[in-house]
Amino acid sequence: MGPHPAVAAIRLAVRRVLHDVLTLAPPAPGDRPPLVLAACSGGADSMALASALAFEAPRLGIRAGGITVDHGLQHGSDLRAAEVVSRLTALDLDPVEAVTVTVGKEGGPEAAARDARYAALDAAAERHGAAAILLGHTRDDQAETVLLGLARGSGTRSLSGMAVASGTGGRYRRPFLELDRQTARKACLVQSLPVWEDPHNSDPAYTRSRVRHEALPVLEKALGKGVVEALARTAQLSRDDADALDAWAVAVEPSVRDDTGALEVAKLYALPPAVRRRVLRRAAIEAGSPAGSLFARHIEEVDRLITGWRGQRAINLPGRVAVRRHGGRLVLRQG
Amino acid sequence: MGPHPAVAAIRLAVRRVLHDVLTLAPPAPGDRPPLVLAACSGGADSMALASALAFEAPRLGIRAGGITVDHGLQHGSDLRAAEVVSRLTALDLDPVEAVTVTVGKEGGPEAAARDARYAALDAAAERHGAAAILLGHTRDDQAETVLLGLARGSGTRSLSGMAVASGTGGRYRRPFLELDRQTARKACLVQSLPVWEDPHNSDPAYTRSRVRHEALPVLEKALGKGVVEALARTAQLSRDDADALDAWAVAVEPSVRDDTGALEVAKLYALPPAVRRRVLRRAAIEAGSPAGSLFARHIEEVDRLITGWRGQRAINLPGRVAVRRHGGRLVLRQG
Repeated sequence: MGPHPAVAAIRLAVRRVLHDVLTLAPPAPGDRPPLVLAACSGGADSMALASALAFEAPRLGIRAGGITVDHGLQHGSDLRAAEVVSRLTALDLDPVEAVTVTVGKEGGPEAAARDARYAALDAAAERHGAAAILLGHTRDDQAETVLLGLARGSGTRSLSGMAVASGTGGRYRRPFLELDRQTARKACLVQSLPVWEDPHNSDPAYTRSRVRHEALPVLEKALGKGVVEALARTAQLSRDDADALDAWAVAVEPSVRDDTGALEVAKLYALPPAVRRRVLRRAAIEAGSPAGSLFARHIEEVDRLITGWRGQRAINLPGRVAVRRHGGRLVLRQG
Repeated sequence: MGPHPAVAAIRLAVRRVLHDVLTLAPPAPGDRPPLVLAACSGGADSMALASALAFEAPRLGIRAGGITVDHGLQHGSDLRAAEVVSRLTALDLDPVEAVTVTVGKEGGPEAAARDARYAALDAAAERHGAAAILLGHTRDDQAETVLLGLARGSGTRSLSGMAVASGTGGRYRRPFLELDRQTARKACLVQSLPVWEDPHNSDPAYTRSRVRHEALPVLEKALGKGVVEALARTAQLSRDDADALDAWAVAVEPSVRDDTGALEVAKLYALPPAVRRRVLRRAAIEAGSPAGSLFARHIEEVDRLITGWRGQRAINLPGRVAVRRHGGRLVLRQG
């Protein structure tokens, strides 16, 4: 008899990613087997991930390790991290490590915790020479991410959710992105894996928690059961669309600049608005405007120097970048 | 003293559209003044629209008329239509007409009612020689439409909501698409315009009604007050993105076909996925698959003939269109 369907599903998802890792970076003869780490909070998704990695990796000649991050945000989080280490060790992962981070304040509590976590995981990957780090994000997390992006109203890129592979050289992998949370939970249950419920996940002070526990259930009630799947599909389609349009903007950019490198209004005007706005956004970032603070409304305002010219004054963008129209040229300058 | 800000806002919105109509189709000397019709259900949005049209049109040398559609779905709907006619007449609109339609079943009750309504409005525009028909959709309607599109999970085009101008020659105009519903209501109130609340709008049997009364309030609570605005902005950005990518697909299509017009797999493979899927979608529609029944998952399956070839059998698409890979070519045929 084979494993429970939920266990089979998590293992298959991890196996596919491990195959992919081996294909992209095949170990040379005589090399030490490559190492893949599971990032694990101790919650159901990442415990399921760690268990699947522990099962699949040895069968493919891969070493499997685990990392847990102690954010130091809750009393006793160090004890919890130690507990996760012992659970990962019990799965026969090796190396297993708990890393402690200091969470700053930039961008709000959720963004700051995320930044600190990824910095620690990056450092751990370097330290251990890991070929990949697996993350336990599920299709439900993806749906939540799309809704959070929707609330920003910044268009296709902000709807594209999390990538299957991201980070330096595609180091981060998300094997469960097409799997639902329920499957991960079930896999823990049938494997008798103890899991930890992060109180943050149900704390309504956090936007993601409100999306998960309030917004998505009501959306499902209003729009039907397929909402999570539809949101996850939207993410994939939006990512592909945004990639194609970004590539278009990159390709067209040299042709809309004059000999001095200045952007020519007439040539910009002739571009499709979606491509023009991307060219403008890239130019603003190149001039020193920080990507994270540059919103759709900023670019719209710059765009009106081209499409709605009535002698406007300079447009001020984040990062003290001023954009003015000077004759038939756009001049971007950091002040 | 000028008009109430809400009245000023609805008039400005209508005035801009009327200017645009005059610019696009300036009346020749000696012609009868152009006619613009307001489509009016008797609800607050479209009564505000009719009142603004009645005020602005004469000032621009435009004749203003009104049309109300009796869907015949509720008992006494004919009396209601007659009541709307008398309210539009009281605004000095001329001509004013009630048209009765028969709502079919295709695509569900909301789609069938919409199809019947637009067919009747098209016929009325032809009959009266109208230059444009104004529709009272607000930014809130737009936000609802984006959420409904999101639930389909069909990507960027389905997130692009309603266009500012649509239909034959851009006949339908939506002046209130950047105005919130509250402003339209307020404008009716301060002008003492009687309005009618369509019970369908609050009937939870209708998906749009559930989105309006259940989903959006909870989304606002979870994500913040700017959700409606963010959704409306998403619509505009998505529309531009979808337009640009469609144009790319149209432009590239001849170059991926061989001398016989067959699609070449190797050339399709080299396209960005977002463009390739659009080329495939266009080819499927050209082969006879009805656009409305062709979903993202169909195109994904066809795409796997190119990106995940393992000797699959023919893919069957709606409209009895079969797609098979034959050597290095895709063959689409209606059976």
